[in-house]
Amino acid sequence: MMDAKEYLKKKSAELDGPIRKYIVDDEPPNLVEASRQYPYAGGKRMRPAMVLACCGAVGGDPSDAVPLAVAIEYIHNFTLIHDDLMDGDEVRRGMRTIHVGYGMPTSVLAGDWLFSRACEIIANMDVPPEKVVKVMRYVTKAVCDLGRGQQMDVNNEGKIVPEEYYVETIKLKTSVLFAAGAAGGAIIGGADDRTAQAIYDYAIDLGLGFQMQDDYLGVAGDPKKTGKSVGNDIRKGKCTCMITHAMRAIKDPSLLDELKGILGKLDATDEECARARKILEDAGSIKYAKDLAREKAESAIERIAFLPESEDKEFMIALARYSIEREV
Amino acid sequence: MMDAKEYLKKKSAELDGPIRKYIVDDEPPNLVEASRQYPYAGGKRMRPAMVLACCGAVGGDPSDAVPLAVAIEYIHNFTLIHDDLMDGDEVRRGMRTIHVGYGMPTSVLAGDWLFSRACEIIANMDVPPEKVVKVMRYVTKAVCDLGRGQQMDVNNEGKIVPEEYYVETIKLKTSVLFAAGAAGGAIIGGADDRTAQAIYDYAIDLGLGFQMQDDYLGVAGDPKKTGKSVGNDIRKGKCTCMITHAMRAIKDPSLLDELKGILGKLDATDEECARARKILEDAGSIKYAKDLAREKAESAIERIAFLPESEDKEFMIALARYSIEREV
Repeated sequence: MMDAKEYLKKKSAELDGPIRKYIVDDEPPNLVEASRQYPYAGGKRMRPAMVLACCGAVGGDPSDAVPLAVAIEYIHNFTLIHDDLMDGDEVRRGMRTIHVGYGMPTSVLAGDWLFSRACEIIANMDVPPEKVVKVMRYVTKAVCDLGRGQQMDVNNEGKIVPEEYYVETIKLKTSVLFAAGAAGGAIIGGADDRTAQAIYDYAIDLGLGFQMQDDYLGVAGDPKKTGKSVGNDIRKGKCTCMITHAMRAIKDPSLLDELKGILGKLDATDEECARARKILEDAGSIKYAKDLAREKAESAIERIAFLPESEDKEFMIALARYSIEREV
Repeated sequence: MMDAKEYLKKKSAELDGPIRKYIVDDEPPNLVEASRQYPYAGGKRMRPAMVLACCGAVGGDPSDAVPLAVAIEYIHNFTLIHDDLMDGDEVRRGMRTIHVGYGMPTSVLAGDWLFSRACEIIANMDVPPEKVVKVMRYVTKAVCDLGRGQQMDVNNEGKIVPEEYYVETIKLKTSVLFAAGAAGGAIIGGADDRTAQAIYDYAIDLGLGFQMQDDYLGVAGDPKKTGKSVGNDIRKGKCTCMITHAMRAIKDPSLLDELKGILGKLDATDEECARARKILEDAGSIKYAKDLAREKAESAIERIAFLPESEDKEFMIALARYSIEREV
């Protein structure tokens, strides 16, 4: 079986050049620098690698999809810049976040600029205009949805919401951009509308699994690997499938009160966080979330079963597995 | 001669429906409300009216350009939301700005959402894909440039910059969006590339005149009409053509020191602001800026002289004059 992590590393190295190429020196330099910081800093590059694979898997030449891959990565970085500002986060990938390093106004503008640059790159792709327009429809709808998902996330803060609402939030916040990139790559590769839609659905499920694994790592991950403080999500009272499950599964009112007392308690001790995790584990909530993530990944893989065998398809399958098995 | 203000009022009323139509009720309601506030509040609607006129002036059916007109207005409103956040302004059009009314995170997201919605509307226009792509190229480049102009504006704050740099800043900050809308409207109307470019250049000059008139009103306008405190731009130390001219024209060092002492003095009294205005007037700086604005408007009009006579062309001409004669 393909090692998605290794393959991703290879693809990521190939993408570094193009990702740098589309931000040229210009006036004013501080906006250019601020806009460059996240794209240049690396990351998993899952989204752009997926764009290329989806183009290749339908028989296209992945190099045709490089501009879209870059654009999707810029859009991802634009949302990170604005997210960090909204959350007040001060460090990302070991560096100061943009609003800390360059000030609030420049963080707003750098995000805006990356998004408009992404759209400009798509508008200038060297593919027939019919394809450009189709890709543009997927991408712009995704960014609208993304904004809605982020707002739902802001609104959810500190609340326990119904599981369907949580799943809708992460679909909008995470899946739709994966899916727009995947469907866009397929369209550039020559996919018909039905194939593009199947690949879109694949990436929606993959994105859900990816985000559920993120939530899992936030509570049960190894802090040495994730680099995240283990009690973070518990202290923030982040509502995930683990929490919605626990609310249903725990029948002992005093145990439920104990859990609720720790969730969202910003100054909870490490012992309290460990206790919350133990309660979730005993209730089967951690296993429940893990199973749900696995279900999504399996569903993603099923959706593309009809594609002919190829290295790109193999990577798409490996990527779905990786997104729920990764420890980082 | 056509009364641009009256014609604009009529066009604005026609545009109100479409401008409302493209933001439908959706989850989450607070994002939708925040995104609606500025577009619904009205304003001059100069940009969308210009889009329609440029479509008609080249022989097209202006109703084909309505989606683009709406999109340009949304982009304008997106930049206002982010501008107000960056500047810390608390009131616009008599209402609380978005970051004051809904909080900082929602103001970031409402701006982002309006921009992506604008791009989505353009991507879904009912015109041939070749035209959609051309329009998209103009618009996305404009929004990239706009972000650069806003950053230059942030960087310029409290500084006296060379006049060319100031003109470049307002071109990026103001003109390019006018121009993208104008050229886009012309393309939808069937203009060839050369005609679209001439109309683009018309709107660049018009935008420069428009912004110079804004600067003029900020120092010499009637506060009862503009609704702006008369000393505002002086207290902010805003660098405009009046200031760059004064720096060249005033030879008396003590007079120059006096002016510099008032510019950017946040707690300057009304008397001090009046004194600064008097110094600018005596130096011929206010007349200089007014003349420059008029030159731009005349240049704009010349650029479209080749278009056949029509009501839409007449409006384009009247709009160029209005943009430098308006008192609001």
